[in-house]
Parts: sequence; C-alpha cells; structure tokens
Amino acid sequence: MRVVKFREIKREIRILGVDDGSFIHGKGNRAEVIGVVFRGGHWMDGIMFTDIEVDGTDATDRIVEMIVNSPHMGQVRVIITDGLTVGGFNVVDIASLFERTVIPVIAIADKKPDLYEVKKALKNFSDWENRWNSILNAGEMIKINTHKDLNPLYIQIAGISKKDAEEIIVKSATRSRIPEPLRVAHLIASGITHHRNIL
Amino acid sequence: MRVVKFREIKREIRILGVDDGSFIHGKGNRAEVIGVVFRGGHWMDGIMFTDIEVDGTDATDRIVEMIVNSPHMGQVRVIITDGLTVGGFNVVDIASLFERTVIPVIAIADKKPDLYEVKKALKNFSDWENRWNSILNAGEMIKINTHKDLNPLYIQIAGISKKDAEEIIVKSATRSRIPEPLRVAHLIASGITHHRNIL
Repeated sequence: MRVVKFREIKREIRILGVDDGSFIHGKGNRAEVIGVVFRGGHWMDGIMFTDIEVDGTDATDRIVEMIVNSPHMGQVRVIITDGLTVGGFNVVDIASLFERTVIPVIAIADKKPDLYEVKKALKNFSDWENRWNSILNAGEMIKINTHKDLNPLYIQIAGISKKDAEEIIVKSATRSRIPEPLRVAHLIASGITHHRNIL
Repeated sequence: MRVVKFREIKREIRILGVDDGSFIHGKGNRAEVIGVVFRGGHWMDGIMFTDIEVDGTDATDRIVEMIVNSPHMGQVRVIITDGLTVGGFNVVDIASLFERTVIPVIAIADKKPDLYEVKKALKNFSDWENRWNSILNAGEMIKINTHKDLNPLYIQIAGISKKDAEEIIVKSATRSRIPEPLRVAHLIASGITHHRNIL
C-alpha cells in the first residue's frame, strides 16, 4: 500500500478524531458519528458530523463523505478512529478510507481486541465475510506506550509508516493516554447522544 | 451583591462556557444551548446541553437547571456566557444565574452593545420591561484587552470582582481573543445546529 511520507510531524499538525455516540440497538437505527479537528494535541479547530446505520455497512462511505465535504478537507493530515467499528458492527475499512481521502488513518484500540470473539460476533451477519475482510484489511496490530506507567494502546494503520504513526499518537496524547482529538470527539459524541436519548 | 472571593486564579480553574447554536426564528421554536467545561484555557473536561424557547423567557431557568443537574456542579468555578441573550431575545439574567448557582458569571460581548438598539428591539415584546430590567441588572460594561493589538472585549459580571474577572478572561484566552471555553462552545454549538438544520 502507498504511504504518505511526513518530513516532519509539526506540533500543530491537523488531526481529525472520529468517534460514534451511544445508540439504540436494532435494525434500521442510526448512530451519530462526529469528527473533531484538532491542532496536534492542543486545541480544537472544528467539528463535523455524519450518521451511519447501526450494524450496517455504510460507515466507510459516510465517513469519507463527511471528510471530503467539510471545509477542513485539504488541511487534515491524519485521521484517528476509535477502533475499526462504529454503531455496533458497522466496519470502517481504514485502507479504503485512506485510498479515498488520501489522508493516512490510524485506528486506536484501548486494549488488544480479541479477534476470535470479533469473528464469532460477525458470523451473525449474512455478509460476515466482507466485514471480516475489512477487519483483516486493517493489518497488523501495533502496541504503543503513550505514557510510562499507563496501559499501552494498540493501533492499526493505513497510508502511514509505523514510526510516523507512533510519533503522532505520542505527541497528541497531551492530557491522557488517548490522543486529544479522539478523547474530545468521544466526550462530545457521548454528550450529544446522551442528551438526545433522554429528550 | 455578594461576591465570591478567589484567593488565587489557578491555571486549571474549571470554567463553563455557554453559547447557543443557530436556530430558526418563529414563536414556539427551540434553540439549543450548550455548556463546555474547560480547565482554564487549556483542555476540555465535559459538555452539557439544554434548549430554550426562541425569543422566550426561560433561558435563565433552563441554564440553571442544566448546570445544577450536571456532574460538573460543585467543580465549575465560573460561568462565561456569550452576551446576555440566547435564542434571539431570551435574556439570561446573570445576577439571578449567580444567585441560583452560587457560581460567578461573566457575560462577554465581542463589541460594545448598542443599548439604544437593544431597547428598541425589546419593545416588540409585550413584556419588554422585564427583559430590559434583566439587561440593566447585568450592570456596568467593562472593557478588557485580552491581547495587545487585538480588539477589546466588553464584559458584565455577577458575583465576582472586576479584577478576578479580568484575570480569568485574560488567562483563558489562550488561542484567540475569546476565552477558550466560549470559543469551543461556539464551535460545537454552531456545528451541531448546522448539521441538524440540513438533515
């Protein structure tokens, strides 16, 4: 796969953190997905929204649309996603997300996913092989320590070297072990959907 | 009026920035209001939501409710609002907001409001005198320069000394002339409502 080369990871590199809100399980339901543009691990520059089908197959398409239609397209240098799925088992194909936006992607997992369990769960879907292939497409799981004494993160990458991905993750994890764009995307996405679900 | 004394303005003092999203004019319509909890001018700690009637009179009540029912009550040391109105002419009575939350309030205006024009517009409402009294209740307009070479801000305060308010505004305006909690509340509120209005 092609890889974008970073000559230098600037302190204020624009990073898009993507996370989903909470959602109600069930066929046809939608889950909100938000993108937060950050300058490095430092301050917020913008926000974008989309929504995807719970347990559907439109996550990659909708996230590509959200990004290319946003005024931040052309400025965002890297995308960080919360794992490989949104809205249940709607798989984000990070290789395809990279190919279609030409922005490198780093998927972060809080702990090492149990692929055996993932595969077992996917087998509930008639199209499980496509979903499973998108998961395999994300490639090798790389362990990263953002802070001494804190648990490591596990990342998968598309369109970026391990070394550059690691540097971006470590530099942007300024307030916790999670990169700031993703931490804040999570705060906002859960806040919005909690508010909406209790209305 | 009682004034909360700050022995020291800590770098990471918890500040709540409150702003409204865009809304559609018309009787009975609602406008979204969000609160963003920040540590000083540095990083985001939480988010809260409410909604108020466009051109209604429930802003103070709903914002008090939003704050006292949030898990951040007891931690937020100061509230910063974007001016004295949300959702059109729904006036936030900052003196009452302070009395009912016991959290000092600073209302910020980007430029000096033209009180003659405000009064003229308020006269379209049958209860204009109540609204006008809430505006007068906010007291003196104080000019503050957060950054040399940038335009000043104008603030009104409740429950806090001029000196403490000025220090909080200057210290939290880390990325622009606007305090970071309010800048980010504005980014999120406009983003959410833009998204919703085009859905």
